[in-house]
Amino acid sequence: MTRTDVPRDDIRVAVSTVIFSLRREPDRERASVVLPLVRRTRDPHEGQWALPGGWMDAAEQLEAAASRTLGETTGLDPSYLEQLYAFGDISRSPSRVVSIVYWALVREDASLAATSENVAWFDATALPALAFDHNQIVDYALWRLRNKVGYSRIAHGMLPELFTLADLREVYEAILGRDLDPANFRRQVEGSGTLIPTERFRTGSHRPARLYRYNHDVELAERGPLPSTSSLSPATV
Amino acid sequence: MTRTDVPRDDIRVAVSTVIFSLRREPDRERASVVLPLVRRTRDPHEGQWALPGGWMDAAEQLEAAASRTLGETTGLDPSYLEQLYAFGDISRSPSRVVSIVYWALVREDASLAATSENVAWFDATALPALAFDHNQIVDYALWRLRNKVGYSRIAHGMLPELFTLADLREVYEAILGRDLDPANFRRQVEGSGTLIPTERFRTGSHRPARLYRYNHDVELAERGPLPSTSSLSPATV
Repeated sequence: MTRTDVPRDDIRVAVSTVIFSLRREPDRERASVVLPLVRRTRDPHEGQWALPGGWMDAAEQLEAAASRTLGETTGLDPSYLEQLYAFGDISRSPSRVVSIVYWALVREDASLAATSENVAWFDATALPALAFDHNQIVDYALWRLRNKVGYSRIAHGMLPELFTLADLREVYEAILGRDLDPANFRRQVEGSGTLIPTERFRTGSHRPARLYRYNHDVELAERGPLPSTSSLSPATV
Repeated sequence: MTRTDVPRDDIRVAVSTVIFSLRREPDRERASVVLPLVRRTRDPHEGQWALPGGWMDAAEQLEAAASRTLGETTGLDPSYLEQLYAFGDISRSPSRVVSIVYWALVREDASLAATSENVAWFDATALPALAFDHNQIVDYALWRLRNKVGYSRIAHGMLPELFTLADLREVYEAILGRDLDPANFRRQVEGSGTLIPTERFRTGSHRPARLYRYNHDVELAERGPLPSTSSLSPATV
C-alpha cells in the first residue's frame, strides 16, 4: 500500500562522483581545482555537461558502483573516494532518482590522461550550467573539500609520494582560493606531526628544497568508525 | 542490460533516523545520551530492536520521508534533522536495500512522551544487538554527534530556550562521555559568541544561576551550501 499515486518502488538509485584534481596554467597566479565532466549524449539534458556516474547495480557495493561508473565514463582511478551525500530532491530529474554522490581526488599526472571527445576538465569555481542539480552538488563537494583540508591530510590525495612544502602550500592555496603566508604555513605544517622530512632535496633553478612525505600513520581523512567497503583504504594511498 | 544476474532495479530505498536525547537517572553521575528503538514485528529480525524508519515514498522528499517514518513509529517530532549517510552494503539485508539515514535531536521533555509497547529508549553506548547494521549506524551517528558538538551549537537541539551554563555543560559531558572543568568550560563558551546572557536567573537550592539563550544568528550546525528541503530550518529551533 502506498500513500500516493506514485508507486514507491519507482525510485531508481544512481551514483555520481565529483573528482577533484589540481591544474597549473602558465597564465594563472594560483593553481586551480579542476574536475572532469562528461557530455550527455541523450535526454534528459542531452548535450549538457554532467558529473561522471551511472545506475547502481543491485549486486555491487555502493563504493564499487562509484568506482566502476567513474572508470567507465572517464577512465580515472581515484586515490581517495568518500561518500559525500545522497541527493534525492523530487524535482532533480524527470523520474525519481536518488543519487548517492561520492567525492574523490586524483593526482595531477593521472588527471591529464583522462580527456576525450566527451570528457573535459573544468575549473571547479567557474562551471557552465550543468545537467540536473550537478552545480549544487559540486558546490557542496567544494565546501566539503575546503573544510576537510583544514583538519586532515586530504591534500596528499593531490600530491605525489614526495613533495616540497611549496608543493603542499600550492594545493592548500588552490583549494582555499587564497594566498597563504609561507613562513606561517611551514610552522603550522611542521607542528602538525603529519609530515616526515626525508634526506632528499629537489634541485633546480632555486635553492634546493627538502622533500617530505606524509606520515601514513595519520588517516588521510577521518572517516569515523565506518569501515571502507572497497580496497581504497587510506593506508594504500 | 545489467552486469549481473540481479536486475538493477531491484534496489529499494528506505529511510531511518537516529534520534538522540538526554536522560538523567538519579543513580548516574552523568546524564546519558539515549535513543528510541522500535521492536520489529515481522521478519527479517522479528522481535529485535531497530532504528525508527520505513520505506521511502517516491512522491516525497528524502527529509520528509525521514520525518514521516519517525513520526509514524515513535510519534517524535525532532528539533533538528540532518542527513547522516547512505548505508547500502549488500549483506545488510536479505534483499537489496539502500537506507538513507538521518540523525536528529529531541529535547528531553519531548523524549519522555515517546514510549509505547514497541518503542523504548536505550543508552546509546550500551545497546543490545540490533537488527540489520543498525549498531554500526548508531556508532557512526554518535561519532558525528561528538565531532559536531565541538564546532557548532548542536547542543541547543537538546536544551530548552533558556538554560544555565551548568545545563549546557551537562549536555557536553553526556555527549563526550567525560567530565569538563566548569571554569574552562565557561571561558570557552563565553568566548565563542554563540550564547547571549539574559537578565533572568534560575533560583533554587543553589545560588542563582544566570539563564542564557543561543544566538540564533549562528547556525545550529554548518550544513554548507545545501538548502534544507523541509521546514526544519535551523532558524526555527
